[in-house]
Amino acid sequence: MKLLKALTGVAGAIALTTGSAFADDLRWKMPVAFATNLPGLGSPAAWVADNLTTASNGSIQVRVYEPGKLVPPFDILQSVSDGKVSAGYTWIGYDQGKVPAVPLFAAVPFGMKPWAYIGWYYYGGGHELLQETYHNKGFKVHAQLCGIIGPETAGWYANKIESLDDYKGMKIRFAGLGGKVLEKLGASVTMMPGGELYQALEKGTIDATEFSMPAIDQILGFDQVVKYNLFPGWHQQFTAQYMLINQDEWDGASDSQKALVEASCTAATTLGLAEGEYKNGAVLAGFQENGIHADQIPTDVLKKLKAVTQEVLEEEAAKDADFKRAYESQQEFLKTYKVWDERAYLPADL
Amino acid sequence: MKLLKALTGVAGAIALTTGSAFADDLRWKMPVAFATNLPGLGSPAAWVADNLTTASNGSIQVRVYEPGKLVPPFDILQSVSDGKVSAGYTWIGYDQGKVPAVPLFAAVPFGMKPWAYIGWYYYGGGHELLQETYHNKGFKVHAQLCGIIGPETAGWYANKIESLDDYKGMKIRFAGLGGKVLEKLGASVTMMPGGELYQALEKGTIDATEFSMPAIDQILGFDQVVKYNLFPGWHQQFTAQYMLINQDEWDGASDSQKALVEASCTAATTLGLAEGEYKNGAVLAGFQENGIHADQIPTDVLKKLKAVTQEVLEEEAAKDADFKRAYESQQEFLKTYKVWDERAYLPADL
Repeated sequence: MKLLKALTGVAGAIALTTGSAFADDLRWKMPVAFATNLPGLGSPAAWVADNLTTASNGSIQVRVYEPGKLVPPFDILQSVSDGKVSAGYTWIGYDQGKVPAVPLFAAVPFGMKPWAYIGWYYYGGGHELLQETYHNKGFKVHAQLCGIIGPETAGWYANKIESLDDYKGMKIRFAGLGGKVLEKLGASVTMMPGGELYQALEKGTIDATEFSMPAIDQILGFDQVVKYNLFPGWHQQFTAQYMLINQDEWDGASDSQKALVEASCTAATTLGLAEGEYKNGAVLAGFQENGIHADQIPTDVLKKLKAVTQEVLEEEAAKDADFKRAYESQQEFLKTYKVWDERAYLPADL
Repeated sequence: MKLLKALTGVAGAIALTTGSAFADDLRWKMPVAFATNLPGLGSPAAWVADNLTTASNGSIQVRVYEPGKLVPPFDILQSVSDGKVSAGYTWIGYDQGKVPAVPLFAAVPFGMKPWAYIGWYYYGGGHELLQETYHNKGFKVHAQLCGIIGPETAGWYANKIESLDDYKGMKIRFAGLGGKVLEKLGASVTMMPGGELYQALEKGTIDATEFSMPAIDQILGFDQVVKYNLFPGWHQQFTAQYMLINQDEWDGASDSQKALVEASCTAATTLGLAEGEYKNGAVLAGFQENGIHADQIPTDVLKKLKAVTQEVLEEEAAKDADFKRAYESQQEFLKTYKVWDERAYLPADL
């Protein structure tokens, strides 16, 4: 033991002398799309970075850059693929313009619950399909599921939603495939990062916005501007975040380093879901005490939104082969999942 | 770099010469309560052992012993606490006779869904309460949540359950607090490990049994003996498994090794839930095609089971301070969780 410590000491001294880490060490810059103080959505990135340093005894060090400090939130994929940064942490649905299939791995309207999604992702070939999806569009990244949260809310509005007509002409921030659904209904849909939404809502640049779940929306302060927080979040029953790693960096990592990244990200998926489920109830109860209406969108409106969603999904599948493949794989899984889901869980009326 | 590799080579040669691992390395024997071929329930233990070896570059090696090969399934806690083995992997509810509060961390009748449980465990103080619970009863273990699955079924029966009277005189294998509920209803409740159940059911030693979820029960073959697989599993809406580690072993581990065990176990929690949710639907659909009745227990029977459960939980809380503390902590969380749960998820009738 003494000899080993002495040897390690020598090696450590060499590293200090050259002023650089060992060639086998990983030093990654990781811009993130979400502030790390946002529960479940941003917090997993910070946890993963810390955990990688501790668990690897410093052999892996990931430096997190808060949104916009190094790379704008919507430029993360391109920057990682180009090797400008080694890694990034984001909601990959933001890139649906460049990679049409990514929303199926990020949030599907009227889609899977989070635990069904992780089932499909880890055991139904989802992880492998996602790698192929990026490579087929020329992006040089390895994508690792690295956080998931439960449903978003349907968003923040000045008034209730009582019919599909209410969306007509509404200036709304809405992400992913859900945004395409609202566009079909005549809404003027814009995209902007979370950090810009409060001001846009306050100034009237937008009339309404969805962003995330209560524990997050409270931090962004939407309840201070509008009073209707509508449910359920039909457009995002799960929201998945990924760590994107430049493909050359990933290929150059050792088996041990890869295992560490994979295990840390998979752990972050548990922690993200847990944090949201733990915190949302109390925040939502607090909203209600302060006069926020936590109303349900009427069932007939939801049914119509579902029908329009179906059209959007089929249009996207017709346009892009990767979308079609992932969509059909998910639908195939859901056929039998339904048999389980309908029986396994306790009815709500007990 | 060349010098470092040379140094590592020397160190490796020393290890070979002495024939032992370095003092800082961990070499753990880990008996498990569930065969590692059981999806979600047994598989996480094997995954964690493999992952720890890879991620630590061999510094941690956990050797898994299948059920009964080293330690009988129900003796795992005691063996780990006594230091006869360094670690064990089990459903901790088996020890409710010695540690009355453990079922609250393992499976609560009419209790939390898996994602609510992990919320409470990781963010609501559950992890810390569990350590105190063991220490208060004199057990020297560190407990790490290391796998969770969704609902069990209500079990396997020769006939439907149509009233509470059907449980009277029934010889049934039923675990945890659910077993106490059925005892109150006049059932003759026995406990035995999963590996012994098929034979007991076939020979008529028991009339009925619960064990786990369809993807697991199929492997154990209950569908070959009786034809009613009833739902929902009111007694175990979540089933949590833990890695128990001898306290001295845990205290002696480095920060890096602790972080590796924690991250691997937390990742195994994601993977366990995912594996079950992915596999159960197809297995259950297969059962139905082969004439197994996947029937619901009538709502009025479930309501009565819930009322008796309430009595059992209150009796246990009155008898044991740790039970009371954990029970009240869970109930407090559920008050606000309900506000979220009722609104966030899509209604089933869309």
